[in-house]
Amino acid sequence: MGEAILSVLLTEILIPVAAVIGIIFSLVQWLLVSRVKLSPDRHPPSPANNGKNGYGDYLIEEEEGLNDHNVVVKCAEIQNAISEGATSFLFTEYQYVGYFMVPFAVIVFLFLGSVEGFSTKSQPCTYSKDKMCKPALANAIFSTVSFLLGAITSLVSGFLGMKIATYANARTTLEARKGVGKAFITAFRSGAVMGFLLAANGLLVLYIIINVFKIYYGDDWEGLFEAITGYGLGGSSMALFGRVGGGIYTKAADVGADLVGKVERNIPEDDPRNPAVIADNVGDNVGDIAGMGSDLFGSYAESSCAALVVASISSFGINHDLTSMCYPLLISSMGIIVCLITTLFATDFFEIRAVKEIEPALKKQLIISTALMTVGIAIVSWVALPSSFTIFNFGVQKEVKNWELFFCVAIGLWAGLVIGFVTEYYTSNAYSPVQDVADSCRTGAATNVIFGLALGYKSVIIPIFAIAVSIFVSFSLAAMYGIAVAALGMLSTIATGLAIDAYGPISDNAGGIAEMAGMSHRIRERTDALDAAGNTTAAIGKGFAIGSAALVSLALFGAFVSRAAISTVDVLTPKVFIGLLVGAMLPYWFSAMTMKSVGSAALKMVEEVRRQFNTIPGLMEGTTKPDYATCVKISTDASIKEMIPPGALVMLTPLIVGTFFGVETLSGVLAGALVSGVQIAISASNTGGAWDNAKKYIEAGASEHARTLGPKGSDPHKAAVIGDTIGDPLKDTSGPSLNILIKLMAVESLVFAPFFARHGGLLFKLL
Amino acid sequence: MGEAILSVLLTEILIPVAAVIGIIFSLVQWLLVSRVKLSPDRHPPSPANNGKNGYGDYLIEEEEGLNDHNVVVKCAEIQNAISEGATSFLFTEYQYVGYFMVPFAVIVFLFLGSVEGFSTKSQPCTYSKDKMCKPALANAIFSTVSFLLGAITSLVSGFLGMKIATYANARTTLEARKGVGKAFITAFRSGAVMGFLLAANGLLVLYIIINVFKIYYGDDWEGLFEAITGYGLGGSSMALFGRVGGGIYTKAADVGADLVGKVERNIPEDDPRNPAVIADNVGDNVGDIAGMGSDLFGSYAESSCAALVVASISSFGINHDLTSMCYPLLISSMGIIVCLITTLFATDFFEIRAVKEIEPALKKQLIISTALMTVGIAIVSWVALPSSFTIFNFGVQKEVKNWELFFCVAIGLWAGLVIGFVTEYYTSNAYSPVQDVADSCRTGAATNVIFGLALGYKSVIIPIFAIAVSIFVSFSLAAMYGIAVAALGMLSTIATGLAIDAYGPISDNAGGIAEMAGMSHRIRERTDALDAAGNTTAAIGKGFAIGSAALVSLALFGAFVSRAAISTVDVLTPKVFIGLLVGAMLPYWFSAMTMKSVGSAALKMVEEVRRQFNTIPGLMEGTTKPDYATCVKISTDASIKEMIPPGALVMLTPLIVGTFFGVETLSGVLAGALVSGVQIAISASNTGGAWDNAKKYIEAGASEHARTLGPKGSDPHKAAVIGDTIGDPLKDTSGPSLNILIKLMAVESLVFAPFFARHGGLLFKLL
Repeated sequence: MGEAILSVLLTEILIPVAAVIGIIFSLVQWLLVSRVKLSPDRHPPSPANNGKNGYGDYLIEEEEGLNDHNVVVKCAEIQNAISEGATSFLFTEYQYVGYFMVPFAVIVFLFLGSVEGFSTKSQPCTYSKDKMCKPALANAIFSTVSFLLGAITSLVSGFLGMKIATYANARTTLEARKGVGKAFITAFRSGAVMGFLLAANGLLVLYIIINVFKIYYGDDWEGLFEAITGYGLGGSSMALFGRVGGGIYTKAADVGADLVGKVERNIPEDDPRNPAVIADNVGDNVGDIAGMGSDLFGSYAESSCAALVVASISSFGINHDLTSMCYPLLISSMGIIVCLITTLFATDFFEIRAVKEIEPALKKQLIISTALMTVGIAIVSWVALPSSFTIFNFGVQKEVKNWELFFCVAIGLWAGLVIGFVTEYYTSNAYSPVQDVADSCRTGAATNVIFGLALGYKSVIIPIFAIAVSIFVSFSLAAMYGIAVAALGMLSTIATGLAIDAYGPISDNAGGIAEMAGMSHRIRERTDALDAAGNTTAAIGKGFAIGSAALVSLALFGAFVSRAAISTVDVLTPKVFIGLLVGAMLPYWFSAMTMKSVGSAALKMVEEVRRQFNTIPGLMEGTTKPDYATCVKISTDASIKEMIPPGALVMLTPLIVGTFFGVETLSGVLAGALVSGVQIAISASNTGGAWDNAKKYIEAGASEHARTLGPKGSDPHKAAVIGDTIGDPLKDTSGPSLNILIKLMAVESLVFAPFFARHGGLLFKLL
Repeated sequence: MGEAILSVLLTEILIPVAAVIGIIFSLVQWLLVSRVKLSPDRHPPSPANNGKNGYGDYLIEEEEGLNDHNVVVKCAEIQNAISEGATSFLFTEYQYVGYFMVPFAVIVFLFLGSVEGFSTKSQPCTYSKDKMCKPALANAIFSTVSFLLGAITSLVSGFLGMKIATYANARTTLEARKGVGKAFITAFRSGAVMGFLLAANGLLVLYIIINVFKIYYGDDWEGLFEAITGYGLGGSSMALFGRVGGGIYTKAADVGADLVGKVERNIPEDDPRNPAVIADNVGDNVGDIAGMGSDLFGSYAESSCAALVVASISSFGINHDLTSMCYPLLISSMGIIVCLITTLFATDFFEIRAVKEIEPALKKQLIISTALMTVGIAIVSWVALPSSFTIFNFGVQKEVKNWELFFCVAIGLWAGLVIGFVTEYYTSNAYSPVQDVADSCRTGAATNVIFGLALGYKSVIIPIFAIAVSIFVSFSLAAMYGIAVAALGMLSTIATGLAIDAYGPISDNAGGIAEMAGMSHRIRERTDALDAAGNTTAAIGKGFAIGSAALVSLALFGAFVSRAAISTVDVLTPKVFIGLLVGAMLPYWFSAMTMKSVGSAALKMVEEVRRQFNTIPGLMEGTTKPDYATCVKISTDASIKEMIPPGALVMLTPLIVGTFFGVETLSGVLAGALVSGVQIAISASNTGGAWDNAKKYIEAGASEHARTLGPKGSDPHKAAVIGDTIGDPLKDTSGPSLNILIKLMAVESLVFAPFFARHGGLLFKLL
């Protein structure tokens, strides 16, 4: 079998060092962003100073408004309002999440503790029957603890991400005065702060938990890594709240603000007199930043847990080979270093000098990080793995070579890139699909919707083939472990992915602040250019999130099946088939709930905004500030209340199915939800992204074709706006939440597997 | 094991007798419809004659326009034009179908013949290895013949259905002058002609084929019924053309006529000056009548074939028990008799006297036929089955009692009723879901679309549970045979189902003819009332079609797995899982194609209609007749050309997957397409139906709430019209075609199973 080249000691050092480097890098980026002052500048920059930039020739815009102190003050005010709103949302969310997490932690403890009747005696191990393992009660306790730690880490990640984003958006607006390049760097750096903080934080906490738990578990790695899966469950549960609640929040505020402000009161978008305007801007940070952050953190935590739990019952775990055991963590460590270098390409090695360079710069980030990471994976696979080892494969040990594992991780990584580019093709208005959708607006909203839906359906094809190939190759090479590390491969460049993702909503908010602060039309145009690129990258980020979710879920599903001691999941048995059918239905049920929730929540917002306009004197005249906080609170309360039914659906389904119908039916449900949910998630995200950019395509009027459809207010533009509004809940609420549905049900099943295997299937036992 | 009570001789007599009774009944209904004269009446009815009806007191309308000879002449003219258009479509369709069917028949022959290298020697049977069966070459020949016969039967069914419908619609218009009751009876009787003709014809042809083939096959029932499955494949292939081509046709004509006529030329809907108006009306008959007829005929043929092929390797087949073997045919025979009695409740036992009685009358048809059929199934199960027998269950024989089989059929039947009523609840504007959608039009088209999509997603839940319960119960009781007969149970009342279905488009056309013939507003109101009820029943019909398709596909899938000699379809093997994932993607790919096709085909229609308006002098003034035939031809050619890619996707996928990836991956693809396709099909149909009826709800203004949203032309109404247009391709093209996708792939896999088992999986063999 051989030994890994990397010593155990070095492994134990390298992982935390990489995490700390990530955190330091993130702080440095933050420092750079903070240099943009949000207080009026006493010494306006001299023309000579401007000249130093040295790229004046290439700039399509000129610096302007640098001397207007009022603008800076207004920006600072608006930023404060958004930040207050975000904090208000966070605290209410914490409260609700607390109500949920505590009872659920109790359930985790009770269910897992009951497996051996709360006995404190050691028990024979599940896989190595001849050895003795720690009691089930210990697993219950440690699972509960890691569940809570996962939830808290996710919560902190979301909180920090939101704080950074709300800190950065006004600064981006101010930098936009100096040119699109400066604004880009500020927005991108802020995204990087979040990306690196999340990736490094997730790695560090996981590393610490493992080492602390090991003090108790000692040589019982089976129990140790089983308990660690609670970390994934905690992270994903938080992500569910973040994504669904945030998604409902942002779209309710968006629709509510527009319906009263634009339609009834005839004031422009992002006007500070609109009481819901802050909620709208907060929503971007809540939904797209915190939600996406929690979601990807969840994916990362779950794929690490899935890999670790399978490794613990493979030769790595059996031989107590810590370096190889930590292979998933080493991949993530390498990812942080690779992403760090990649980031420098966007912020330091090259400079953005014109609008048309933004999208290529972002795309280059993806390509560079993927190329570098391929080398990184090869190094890690070479030093951290023995040349040959065995992997647990549904009851038997399969022999695997280290280069085979390299291929598993690499195929996941490259599949992610393929999914990213396909998503870009279908959602960017630089290509024909979105232009066709824009063109269909000529004959009205109906054809726009028909073409948009068809585009979303079509965009599913290549990503599914990419995922299928990854699954086939990685499964063939290294069974379920191969799939888990393929998922990790796709997520290994998560820091860069998150940076790109966060960049979008920051630019969006920057545009909103420019409008609210009454800055010139040209500033708004620059932030709009940043935002348009951000729309596409948001869709790419969603593509990554969905692709990795599919792989992660499958890996977790495999781990669940192993743990529940099922040898086959045969579609031809009725128990499994009805599970498959009902599982495939769950994403529809869930989407129906979330889409209607957006409608209901928007309605409540409309009522409050109307009330403020009718009762607060001087509001329309701009002499009184509206009560932003109440709108934020209404949106918060409504969205969190509305997210309870879909949340309950996801959280309770595995418990109910496992307890009453047993592990076979639950396997069917997981497989059905996975294969059906992936399709709806991809098509919903891309349809929404395409509609949004079709509208932007008409508004920008950058080509002859686009100008025949515009300008703003033309009939085709109105049709495009309708499509954009329909796409909102699809792309920002129901679509991305489906990732979490499939991941969370899988990880929950894995955590509760010992309980289901022992006490599950009550209904069939009774019959 | 025991013997069936019913003798073989009596079985051989009863089946054709029931079929002939069905055909005679259908002819009698046709005779009654034909009594409505389409030539001007020389002796206008005397008032005394009217008084004889005896229900004048209850009528909400009065007889009118009976003396206007011009109206009758005009109706006859329009009917001729529609009939000509329908014929034109049929002949082009035949041509294209011929191009496809002949090469495919050759493929069937070559692939199946190659299994034993075109040897003419007898071979050991697949299941009873000790016995000798007919050579594979014989199976290839007979499968090809039954494939062609299935295609021809389906084709004839579609042709006759369309002829009857186009014969009936002007007559319904004329009867509407006498009152809503008379019109209802005419429309319903015409539907019954089609329903009984199709059901009886399908049964009779299948019965004859079996008896003729038996002359050659003798005791080799395994080979006999394997060859018979070609009948299902032929029927379904035709249905694919009918549904997809017809669906694209009807929606292209509909959208094309509206965009030029209503929007550009400002002439009313169904105006005879519009060159596409006939194509539009032909479309209803092509899409909803012929398409639905072929589809349900295909389901019927396939579920019979699936049941027969499983029975042939169970004790029925092994013991050569012909009566029990013919159990599926006896169920269908009983169905014809039961539906015959049920029809009399609508046309003779009771009379419709007011608009509000229409929907209850149609619903009563469903309830009565289901209740009577339950008794019928009990009788057939009692007389045609031995009290105990064995059923083939993936390699082993499972013992089953006759009452258990009764439960299997009955649960399918009642699940159909449940699906029907749930569909009605979500698509009829008498209930809150559609009213909520209508209400959401207040805030515009975007909220209408969001609420409509959410409604469609939500409407999936109960039907899926109904199907899941049917599958679980029938599978547990009698394995795959149980599922096949459950599907037959759902389809046993097909004659009534088709009658109700056909009634809708006939009423719709009757309304169009009334408008075109310049008849009074009140006549149009009566036909609109008939049509509104028809919209809901159309949705119910689609619900039945989808539910039965799910069961049929699963039964075929089970038969395929048995025939391909796979013992388990394990989701945890990568070959199966990637099949599952890609299979779940196929309905999206297919929907993307069909939805875009509607758009492109509509565009071509728009160009032709514009050309005619611009080049034919006197067209707008009404002095020249437009060239209806060219529009019909354009719609025909465009739709058939556009249907080739989606058709090829469905027909080639099983061949490619089976040949290159093998039977395991193909199993995954079938299961994935089934569980994913059912959801999209149900949600698409119901979303579309709900939007259509939300629009009608606003237009009719029958309640206080509805009047606040209307009238025609108000903003909410415009929003509702957009939803209605989006729903058109969903409910009439992509949604219902998905039934055929899942059925056809399953039956094709079954037919080619011997080839795949022998020569399939080339790619994996090479690797």
